[in-house]
Amino acid sequence: MERLDKLPHASGETSGGMVLRPVGIIKSKIKEPVLAAGNDGIKMQGQIDAMRRKMREMRQEISEILINEPLIDVLDGIEGYSHLVVLYWAHKVPEQSRSLTKVHPMGREDFPLVGIFSTHSPARPNPVLMTIVRLCERKENVLEVTGLDAVDGSPVVDIKPYVQRLYPREEVRIPEWMERIVKEVDEGDVR
Amino acid sequence: MERLDKLPHASGETSGGMVLRPVGIIKSKIKEPVLAAGNDGIKMQGQIDAMRRKMREMRQEISEILINEPLIDVLDGIEGYSHLVVLYWAHKVPEQSRSLTKVHPMGREDFPLVGIFSTHSPARPNPVLMTIVRLCERKENVLEVTGLDAVDGSPVVDIKPYVQRLYPREEVRIPEWMERIVKEVDEGDVR
Repeated sequence: MERLDKLPHASGETSGGMVLRPVGIIKSKIKEPVLAAGNDGIKMQGQIDAMRRKMREMRQEISEILINEPLIDVLDGIEGYSHLVVLYWAHKVPEQSRSLTKVHPMGREDFPLVGIFSTHSPARPNPVLMTIVRLCERKENVLEVTGLDAVDGSPVVDIKPYVQRLYPREEVRIPEWMERIVKEVDEGDVR
Repeated sequence: MERLDKLPHASGETSGGMVLRPVGIIKSKIKEPVLAAGNDGIKMQGQIDAMRRKMREMRQEISEILINEPLIDVLDGIEGYSHLVVLYWAHKVPEQSRSLTKVHPMGREDFPLVGIFSTHSPARPNPVLMTIVRLCERKENVLEVTGLDAVDGSPVVDIKPYVQRLYPREEVRIPEWMERIVKEVDEGDVR
């Protein structure tokens, strides 16, 4: 784990006001991050098996996205999509974790030390996390979804339609260590 | 086009500080948004053919993502990926466009008036836009990519690995009007 203690961007400048406004909140059974980001970097809570179990549950479990009531019109027509892109704020990431530059993915030292942008670590300069979810049902200002790995109480930043055609159709390459993570998670996959 | 003039979240509260820090900047030949978001909603600049031509150029044209030099370590290992998810701030979207709730997609009245979250409109409560790009080459703190539809000078919010396995494998449904957009763009597609 490496850290930059003095970042030029940490001086309070916000480039003309890049201030996010919560548009809603996530209600989930996940009360703590699977990967806890601490002062010393990222430490995995529990074992790989526990993580797989959690990820499996997460895929089946219904979470709720509550959109602020005065904003309800932004949801018009959302029922036309089977899947949505959800951007949310990782509110459990401590401020100082935003200056991390490198981590062992998932806190595991059998994985190489790599830059934060090569990982999905929630501890990143701007902890805006993204998940593709399946929309089960919309009830007024509440979206019931599966596949959302956000912690309960996470502020919602944005919701976008998931349109498959906008994603790569050509061959995609990922590093060997990420292949191993994908394989490990898949082995616990019941879908 | 509908608008909410008084949003409860427009009062300046930031939910414990959801302030983004630019981690870099985008250098692109695109100098203005294809869709200009104005006071009156969204109006298309030029015709559909022009848009198709721009999208085609955009897919082939190399853009540069310049990461702030003191942050360079966050890029370690990024060369292992063929594709990346780029989050950036739509800095050309005027502040008042953030309170739009409904639009005709692409400003076209032959499409239904739908909620912002059902569209990819850059005028949204939090104008954090997302594009999947192809990484051509990394040179120090510069990523050369194709497929980036960001306007020149857009502040970079985050870069994440694109891992295909994390996206839906099951059937995906989108509304009829979005099918039409996908088809129109595909007809101009030379890939």
